[in-house]
Amino acid sequence: MRATVMYQAGDVRIENVPDAALVDPTDAIVRVTRACICGSDLWPYKLMQPGGNGQRMGHEAIGVVEAVGAEVRTLKCGDVVVMPFAYSDGTCAFCHEDLQTACIHGGFFGTGEVAGAQAEAVRVPLADGTLFALPLGEDDTLMPSLLTLSDVMGTGHHAAVVARVGRGRKAAVIGDGAVGLCGVIAAKRLGAEQIILLGVGEEAIERVHELTGGFGVHSVLECVGTDQAMLTAIGIARAGGAVGRVGVPHYEATPASQPAFYHNISVGGGPAPVRAYIEQLLPDVMEGRIDPGRVFDRVIGIEEVPDGYRAMNEREAIKVMVKP
Amino acid sequence: MRATVMYQAGDVRIENVPDAALVDPTDAIVRVTRACICGSDLWPYKLMQPGGNGQRMGHEAIGVVEAVGAEVRTLKCGDVVVMPFAYSDGTCAFCHEDLQTACIHGGFFGTGEVAGAQAEAVRVPLADGTLFALPLGEDDTLMPSLLTLSDVMGTGHHAAVVARVGRGRKAAVIGDGAVGLCGVIAAKRLGAEQIILLGVGEEAIERVHELTGGFGVHSVLECVGTDQAMLTAIGIARAGGAVGRVGVPHYEATPASQPAFYHNISVGGGPAPVRAYIEQLLPDVMEGRIDPGRVFDRVIGIEEVPDGYRAMNEREAIKVMVKP
Repeated sequence: MRATVMYQAGDVRIENVPDAALVDPTDAIVRVTRACICGSDLWPYKLMQPGGNGQRMGHEAIGVVEAVGAEVRTLKCGDVVVMPFAYSDGTCAFCHEDLQTACIHGGFFGTGEVAGAQAEAVRVPLADGTLFALPLGEDDTLMPSLLTLSDVMGTGHHAAVVARVGRGRKAAVIGDGAVGLCGVIAAKRLGAEQIILLGVGEEAIERVHELTGGFGVHSVLECVGTDQAMLTAIGIARAGGAVGRVGVPHYEATPASQPAFYHNISVGGGPAPVRAYIEQLLPDVMEGRIDPGRVFDRVIGIEEVPDGYRAMNEREAIKVMVKP
Repeated sequence: MRATVMYQAGDVRIENVPDAALVDPTDAIVRVTRACICGSDLWPYKLMQPGGNGQRMGHEAIGVVEAVGAEVRTLKCGDVVVMPFAYSDGTCAFCHEDLQTACIHGGFFGTGEVAGAQAEAVRVPLADGTLFALPLGEDDTLMPSLLTLSDVMGTGHHAAVVARVGRGRKAAVIGDGAVGLCGVIAAKRLGAEQIILLGVGEEAIERVHELTGGFGVHSVLECVGTDQAMLTAIGIARAGGAVGRVGVPHYEATPASQPAFYHNISVGGGPAPVRAYIEQLLPDVMEGRIDPGRVFDRVIGIEEVPDGYRAMNEREAIKVMVKP
């Protein structure tokens, strides 16, 4: 089958690889009908050192179950499924707490252990816990929005939840990539009375203070993952406020004292438990109350994936959908 | 009157200073019946550079109102009052949100602007908002516990609240000073099912993991304020857990990525709004359900305050009460 392999910064190739195959009895094989390129894929695209054996990329997908292992109980061939970016058993203490990204037996797609989903098919470990079956055909018009439930919409929602967005609260979203845009949708959905979308830096901090009577915002959704983004987040948070960070941190540390401590600002977040959020967000997608699929501004085939990386890296595209 | 003045690290003196006097019409003068030395006073005791005009120390007190300004409405001479370590107007947006330590017109005792309470009397700005009148005589046996409501008990409680202590949750308290001990009381009061009191370092991290089935604790109360304490806090927090930090941070930054981000650990806290917590904690003190006054293991007169600093700094005493 055809699959995406990254060898070093800027070097993404589509190659023939062995077909995805069952390994463990809890596995499923999913034929990928839609995948996408993630903002977090751009970090290795910018930084990956040469010399490895190549990394199979991709962690967001919708597809059709093509095979299930002997111990898979809840899925069958033909099911249309969302594949969250992390796999999880659905039974451990953390899964029961709806923190599937901390699953004791879980892990992440597109890493050394499990191949990526920018491919014609993907092996899904712990299929019963990981996959979410959809009551729709594989070509339903809702597919772009449903695909965002595999990562970006759930991730934006996580930022909003951790940042304690709610009715009567002012929110700011740092980062205008797909996660940031989903963060805006999430903040609106959770009832924020004001939502400010911004970049980073001193000027942005001043402008947010101007827009909020000098106080800053109750909730900051940090959807970038750089030190400047975190400094900006802390700089615009109202005393007693909360920062939800979901951008994979590419910085060493967050400032400890002024103003985070003296303003009683809490900083939380991490890999979003999108598996849990699918159930919360799905009704709003199905009934058209939110339409996060609008973040996709380009659709490509599998052979065009390298150019998709280039386009997203050059900010020519916000979010690229792949139809293998 | 006699008051405590610090000139540099290790140099604390009791001096004659002008009597505390009304300045603003919202002021009250409080004759201090009990004050104390705070763990946070030990930071300047260790680090203060020489060359200034001296710092009037102390931010925790109980006393009797001796004079009130023309605009003071709710207090009268003779009232026995608790003085929280921060003054606040009680009317601004943050005070209404019970975050009096972010009061727009507020500030802290024992700083450049307002003199300290390790003295025979103290000027209290914004007296109506700041002081809390007690329904007891000045020599009631509950006074040691009530005195802790001016700082350490409210601060330990804040750590527990921010760390989301609750029924069925495991908690750890870093720091065995007075705030840490109050943190234990607070964690028990809020229903923690297990409470571990510990120091800092790799060995402590391992031991907490042993005691919690390898998972760590849901709630960490960080009551020290050093980088090692914060590293330990993040190292022992369970995935999805929360760190409440109340030790004044004497470090530059908290680690951003592993494990705080990947474990979805939130870090919050800051100066505790003890003014709000007095109302919550007072019934438990009055009815004997908590007895935080036990943190005091030495009682001294005003002239002995320099030796009190020495004793706390050398960990010969946990918490020193001053009866001027």
